[in-house]
Amino acid sequence: MTTDNAMPLRSAALLAAIAFNDEGLVPAIAQQHDSGEVLMLAWMNREAIEETLASGAACYWSRSRGRLWRKGETSGQTQRLVDIRVDCDGDVVLLLVDQTGVACHTGRRSCFFRALRGNALETIAEPLVAPSALYGED
Amino acid sequence: MTTDNAMPLRSAALLAAIAFNDEGLVPAIAQQHDSGEVLMLAWMNREAIEETLASGAACYWSRSRGRLWRKGETSGQTQRLVDIRVDCDGDVVLLLVDQTGVACHTGRRSCFFRALRGNALETIAEPLVAPSALYGED
Repeated sequence: MTTDNAMPLRSAALLAAIAFNDEGLVPAIAQQHDSGEVLMLAWMNREAIEETLASGAACYWSRSRGRLWRKGETSGQTQRLVDIRVDCDGDVVLLLVDQTGVACHTGRRSCFFRALRGNALETIAEPLVAPSALYGED
Repeated sequence: MTTDNAMPLRSAALLAAIAFNDEGLVPAIAQQHDSGEVLMLAWMNREAIEETLASGAACYWSRSRGRLWRKGETSGQTQRLVDIRVDCDGDVVLLLVDQTGVACHTGRRSCFFRALRGNALETIAEPLVAPSALYGED
């Protein structure tokens, strides 16, 4: 095997195990590899998975924008890929990543910052960075 | 507020924050509350969320069977609800649970037991329980 073949073989092994949905997508959970914190869930298509393996940084498929979403391309808040796992049915992917800065567009570390407390949803984490600092707005 | 009203108010607060998809479902990540291990991802509809809050044990919507799936009803491998969180867009739910036994129907603790190693998917966790012991088969 040559170096040129290594990456396609690698992505082929993973892609063969994934059961994409009717839209060609699979949900991908991003978890901080050392703390175990669940950072976010996004969607990947075949191309996003290939790109993630090739670059070593998480790349998703943006359903709202209809294009590849290289996480952190604008904000700098990239996710270095540490490990990638598939569930028993092949219809969910788990990315263990090393998150630079924050995962959430609100400036919070994790997107899961609202929790049910009594009869109300409460915000349990504050932004670590202002969204304006992430996206260059005033 | 009376005790009778408490649970509907509680689920109403959560349900109001959730953006269900066209099929009336939302993906739900189950994470072991203390170890941080991601156990599985399943789907919930409004009724599954109400049932989960009412019973204190995770209840999902089985897409394959087209009915509520009270996790562990057959196998005994229940998930006690510890906390429930919603992401920034309201389209993913995170359940922090206390998993009895194993989450995966293969008898493994987590459904994410296959990881990409080099050019192959490798099994990184063995069953802790035989599936036959979970589902009463021979």
